[in-house]
Amino acid sequence: MNIYTRTGDEGKTSVIGGRVDKDNIRVEAYGTVDELNCFVGSAISLMKEDKYPDMIPHLLQIQHELFDCASDLAIYKPGIREFKVKKEMVDQLEKWIDLYDEETEDIKRFILPGGSQVSSAMHVCRTVCRRAERRVVTLAKEQEINSEVRKYLNRLSDLFFTVARTANVREGLADVEYIRSAEVFRKRK
Amino acid sequence: MNIYTRTGDEGKTSVIGGRVDKDNIRVEAYGTVDELNCFVGSAISLMKEDKYPDMIPHLLQIQHELFDCASDLAIYKPGIREFKVKKEMVDQLEKWIDLYDEETEDIKRFILPGGSQVSSAMHVCRTVCRRAERRVVTLAKEQEINSEVRKYLNRLSDLFFTVARTANVREGLADVEYIRSAEVFRKRK
Amino acid sequence: MNIYTRTGDEGKTSVIGGRVDKDNIRVEAYGTVDELNCFVGSAISLMKEDKYPDMIPHLLQIQHELFDCASDLAIYKPGIREFKVKKEMVDQLEKWIDLYDEETEDIKRFILPGGSQVSSAMHVCRTVCRRAERRVVTLAKEQEINSEVRKYLNRLSDLFFTVARTANVREGLADVEYIRSAEVFRKRK
Ligand code: B12
Ligand code: B12
Ligand code: B12
Ligand SMILES: C[C@H]1O[C@@H](n2cnc3c(N)ncnc32)[C@H](O)[C@@H]1O
Ligand SMILES: C[C@H]1O[C@@H](n2cnc3c(N)ncnc32)[C@H](O)[C@@H]1O
Ligand SMILES: C[C@H]1O[C@@H](n2cnc3c(N)ncnc32)[C@H](O)[C@@H]1O
Ligand SMILES: [Mg+2]
Ligand SMILES: [Mg+2]
Ligand SMILES: [Mg+2]
Repeated sequence: MNIYTRTGDEGKTSVIGGRVDKDNIRVEAYGTVDELNCFVGSAISLMKEDKYPDMIPHLLQIQHELFDCASDLAIYKPGIREFKVKKEMVDQLEKWIDLYDEETEDIKRFILPGGSQVSSAMHVCRTVCRRAERRVVTLAKEQEINSEVRKYLNRLSDLFFTVARTANVREGLADVEYIRSAEVFRKRK
Repeated sequence: MNIYTRTGDEGKTSVIGGRVDKDNIRVEAYGTVDELNCFVGSAISLMKEDKYPDMIPHLLQIQHELFDCASDLAIYKPGIREFKVKKEMVDQLEKWIDLYDEETEDIKRFILPGGSQVSSAMHVCRTVCRRAERRVVTLAKEQEINSEVRKYLNRLSDLFFTVARTANVREGLADVEYIRSAEVFRKRK
Repeated sequence: MNIYTRTGDEGKTSVIGGRVDKDNIRVEAYGTVDELNCFVGSAISLMKEDKYPDMIPHLLQIQHELFDCASDLAIYKPGIREFKVKKEMVDQLEKWIDLYDEETEDIKRFILPGGSQVSSAMHVCRTVCRRAERRVVTLAKEQEINSEVRKYLNRLSDLFFTVARTANVREGLADVEYIRSAEVFRKRK
């Protein structure tokens, strides 16, 4: 099969329902979601089955859902197709956050992103996710988008934060608090 | 030797043949190529000689060629120097794609970026390469560039995709298809 | 504790002393510093105590200082709070560069970013740091910032370069010179 079609050599490319410049903010947005998806794949590749029997399937489901995000973002004119990202997917992320949150102690201060390789990889996902969210926010200013995608990404970076902390707990590693930080985290529920 | 010259502390920096702001799109473009080059280095560092005797030298050559790309992009005014990236380098990438492609089965659907550590690292390279391509496309709108660089990067992300899939084959891992995807890949040749 | 507050779902978020769009250049700048901090955490997670007894504490201190950078950048209107990044922190980076520099041979040409996993990870930090620097330079054009942050990041990418080279020395690996490069590095002191 020929994966390369040479059709994008001059800087133009196809989206669902149209053709745009490769540096179009829409392409930048789903391109960053694609990049995030790869870092999630990298993180999973570091996880041993026995220590992360729950995280692996959760993250694999998230990889499918990041494709759903990219699909919705790739639609040139809303209405061509039904959107794939639904409110229930955001709700599911919240349930997972609550679940993993029980394994960690409450924090009051910022923590250094790091610890085990798995935890560090989750922190990388957290910040690349936030970069993707920023690109989607820019896109949404210019064109109509599925607003559930924005919510999904916002919640997803919080899930990655929680999973990063849980991973260190499971490795028996303590998170290091940022020394000059005040008490920035507050109880909310 | 003093690596630090402090000359860039105020936000200006030198390109070949001039001095520009550090956030100039030209600097952004070759800076992203440099970032990509580092992810390629990371990927190689994960590869064992016996399983990847062909990929390691190919990727090392690509690292040299990414410097060629950065060199060409760093030239402030075309004409100061001959360009380094030539059509033959793009052709070579296509030959490698065809070569690795033979080790994998044809696909019809998108696959989750992941599997082994090496494969995941290749997918990261794939998407950072596409980010670099986007930056070069933006630069090309504003200033004359060597258009072979754009083609090189376009082909390179397809090579990374093919190598990512081949790496999973060599590790005995099956790629996971994106569940909600239709048949998006078509035979071309 | 509830990490997710849902307050950012509509694309706005809070900085220290105000509320802005999530794709505001200020958020982009400290968001990129946060991303860099995660790659530093990843790099540390690859380092064995016995081979990197000096680098680990140095990099951990840098992680704290990257929070200081992010704090300063997150201040909406200068004057609300005293800045955290001071000239002494930049001086300290220079001392570390001089220190690690002694372990490596002088170079005259560009080197391929790679070698060991630790060295490659340092090169990734180097280029993500330069991306953060570019974002800070853009921010500084629009709004007043703590200019020590810009200097800190400029010096930090040079430190990462030096540490990357030192790491390969400690692993007994030789850096590969870019074949088509001229002599680009010059003695400065
Ligand atoms: C800037 C910021 C960041 C920056 C941090 C940079 C930094 N070093 O400040 C970045 C981008 C890295 C960040 C990341 C995250 N953040 Co944040 N962040 C903020 C923000 C806008 C300001 C934080 C802040 O106040 N910093 C300044 C601190 C307090 O200053 P400080 O120098 O450390 O403290 C000084 C003063 O506070 C004073 N002081 C301290 N104590 C006292 C006591 C008294 C009596 C007095 C007078 C003074 C005083 O002296 C200190 C020394 O100078 C707040 C929202 C807000 N406006 O409060 C959210 C916030 C804290 N973040 C939040 C979250 C969720 C996160 C993330 C988990 C998001 C994610 N998914 O990635 C991550 C966690 C990162 C980590 N590794 O821990 C949430 C927390 C929600 C909750 N349950 O409480 C907040 C509240 C935002 C929100 N959603 O409403 N964040
Ligand atoms: C958007 C897009 C992406 C997004 C994917 C997001 C997503 N989830 O859709 C991203 C950026 C991730 C991407 C990446 C890549 N892509 Co792409 N992508 C596209 C694009 C523009 C649209 C894909 C698409 O149609 N999605 C919508 C799909 C089909 O919708 P769907 O919801 O999955 O399917 C619905 C409908 O199709 C319908 N349906 C399905 N079957 C049927 C049957 C009938 C009878 C009916 C009525 C309806 C129906 O129902 C489905 C359910 O809702 C196409 C070009 C084009 N315009 O077709 C290229 C395209 C598929 N990509 C291509 C390539 C090469 C790639 C990459 C390899 C590039 C690279 N080097 O990184 C990667 C591979 C990624 C991976 N992991 O597999 C090539 C494939 C070339 C080939 N030989 O066929 C294409 C054709 C572009 C091109 N060059 O021309 N891509
Ligand atoms: C572009 C550039 C980069 C690009 C490299 C792209 C590339 N391939 O050129 C990128 C962004 C990757 C880069 C990175 C870095 N760089 Co730089 N870079 C430059 C810059 C602007 C130009 C380099 C250059 O001249 N390239 C063109 C080269 C020389 O061309 P060439 O094709 O290889 O060589 C041709 C000609 O030179 C000619 N030629 C060669 N020899 C001779 C001899 C004769 C007699 C003749 C007639 C002709 C001739 O023929 C050659 C073949 O075509 C210089 C500043 C400047 N204006 O000189 C800084 C510079 C070399 N970089 C510098 C630094 C510090 C770095 C980094 C360490 C920064 C960092 N912290 O990340 C990294 C190191 C990367 C690495 N892996 O080694 C410093 C070095 C300081 C010092 N002590 O000397 C410089 C001098 C900038 C500065 N601060 O002043 N850099
Ligand atoms: C925790 C803090 O992080 C910042 N914040 C919120 N969303 C993003 C994003 N997508 N990228 C970077 N920073 C963000 C805000 O300042 C918030 O208060
Ligand atoms: C496979 C799909 O990926 C998108 N595409 C093409 N080039 C890039 C790039 N540099 N970055 C991100 N997305 C890209 C187009 O939509 C193409 O059809
Ligand atoms: C070594 C070379 O790297 C370029 N340079 C300087 N600062 C940055 C940055 N933040 N990002 C990318 N490239 C940069 C300049 O061209 C310099 O000369
Ligand atoms: Mg948020
Ligand atoms: Mg392409
Ligand atoms: Mg510099």
